[in-house]
Amino acid sequence: MRFSPRDNAFFDLFAADARNVRDGVRLLSQALASDADRAALAVALKEVEHQGDEHTHDIIRRVNSTFVTPFDREDIYRLASALDDVLDDVDAALDLMVLYRVGDLPAGVGDMVDVLDRAAELTAEAMPRLRTASELTDYWIEVNRLENQADQVYRRLLARIFSGEYDALTVHKLKDVVDTLEDAVDGFETVANIVEQIAIKES
Amino acid sequence: MRFSPRDNAFFDLFAADARNVRDGVRLLSQALASDADRAALAVALKEVEHQGDEHTHDIIRRVNSTFVTPFDREDIYRLASALDDVLDDVDAALDLMVLYRVGDLPAGVGDMVDVLDRAAELTAEAMPRLRTASELTDYWIEVNRLENQADQVYRRLLARIFSGEYDALTVHKLKDVVDTLEDAVDGFETVANIVEQIAIKES
Amino acid sequence: MRFSPRDNAFFDLFAADARNVRDGVRLLSQALASDADRAALAVALKEVEHQGDEHTHDIIRRVNSTFVTPFDREDIYRLASALDDVLDDVDAALDLMVLYRVGDLPAGVGDMVDVLDRAAELTAEAMPRLRTASELTDYWIEVNRLENQADQVYRRLLARIFSGEYDALTVHKLKDVVDTLEDAVDGFETVANIVEQIAIKES
Repeated sequence: MRFSPRDNAFFDLFAADARNVRDGVRLLSQALASDADRAALAVALKEVEHQGDEHTHDIIRRVNSTFVTPFDREDIYRLASALDDVLDDVDAALDLMVLYRVGDLPAGVGDMVDVLDRAAELTAEAMPRLRTASELTDYWIEVNRLENQADQVYRRLLARIFSGEYDALTVHKLKDVVDTLEDAVDGFETVANIVEQIAIKES
Repeated sequence: MRFSPRDNAFFDLFAADARNVRDGVRLLSQALASDADRAALAVALKEVEHQGDEHTHDIIRRVNSTFVTPFDREDIYRLASALDDVLDDVDAALDLMVLYRVGDLPAGVGDMVDVLDRAAELTAEAMPRLRTASELTDYWIEVNRLENQADQVYRRLLARIFSGEYDALTVHKLKDVVDTLEDAVDGFETVANIVEQIAIKES
Repeated sequence: MRFSPRDNAFFDLFAADARNVRDGVRLLSQALASDADRAALAVALKEVEHQGDEHTHDIIRRVNSTFVTPFDREDIYRLASALDDVLDDVDAALDLMVLYRVGDLPAGVGDMVDVLDRAAELTAEAMPRLRTASELTDYWIEVNRLENQADQVYRRLLARIFSGEYDALTVHKLKDVVDTLEDAVDGFETVANIVEQIAIKES
């Protein structure tokens, strides 16, 4: 056990923040069902995103008012920002689906959201382990593996979107949604990389 | 007062650099008028951008030749690079408008450039306050708020561009211009985040 | 000579990693020839990319198991990640060419790949000089100059792709390939910037 009890607040905040991101991804996931009320889910996701902003501000306020932090102030800041970025992208993806009225989405979109779902779950599970800065390697490797897998899905999905099956404007809209999902996947990899760097410093 | 007089050169350089970025954004803003000579403004903006490169090199040369810097060498470097990136995007946006001969732009483009104008003004005003590493919170919060606002404008603008009003190639050109403006807005947020991190370390 | 003999392993690993990136770029370059077997070259490039992953893991494992590192652990990590990112983009560009069956490419694509080739060569030559943290300024300036040059080529290439010469789906495919090449060029600049920051700290 490397950290003192007074550090618990930071770890609790990051754990809560990552669970909140996971909740956001679950809403996005529900929005893919053919009978989903996407507009209602987008409103709920916006609420989750505001909750995330609160977590981020709580973390930054605490960094500002705490003399000794459990790990580098800068890394606390970067980790909070990176979690915030992921949730922004998840929120943007659903917002765009609603705004563009994209209707049914190609199957690969579901595969990408499944990757997001798995990455969000792994991230929420990993955050409490930041406390001991251990047993994080598997998480980091798995998120990197998922990101590689999502890359393959993403490229094949683009090839399908550009295959001639969709009209010109739908191509633009689908590409924009899919690019935003890809950004979210990359965002989870960024979170995992920051966690790995923190673990390296603490090791 | 945290910093010694000999540090003034760094603060003066950052203040001048941020004023230069603001000058660049003003040229972009003028280019939106329907009777603007965009080609001439693009030449003037290229000149501002070269001036910005000079500021960046001055800052880096000074980092290299100074034993004690007012804040972390790395942060000086990152801040100079981030200001440089914003100006690159501003320059690229006008360059693309000229190159693509896009003509009149949808109204939302003006709203995004207004956000850039406001962010550039706030950034130029904030830089001199780096010296005391204080009163920067309002700046940081406001730029983050502007970035959220620009996100909404950006998405609604894309929905309009993809609405069927424009021909296929114009859609590509407008999207490219608008994406570059969005990158510039994000760039101002990056600058604000680096300033916030410097202030956190100094606090 | 700043670094002790036991640090040699890190420098050797980075040198090998950068040579591997250069090998990847050469395969991409060969793929532009009109009679190239792109599918076969893509398989060979995937192999180079796996080799790169091995180098990255070797570097990170060594960071984890070494008490004193020749420069900041974080910078070692960032440099390894940045080289990995470049190779990912190079691999993605060829993968997309094959997947989209893009056929002959506009001349500007060759110019962008030539920039990649030159940047890869410069990077491979610069890595061994990390050992003395000197004579790196010319490398850094030249890669930044190449990136600016590639920006110009990139924008003119987009203007051609959007000129009406290509059908709507080909426009999307070409833009995607060209964007990925642009990301790779930016990636070399990121590598150069990290190297410069390391040199600044060591100076």
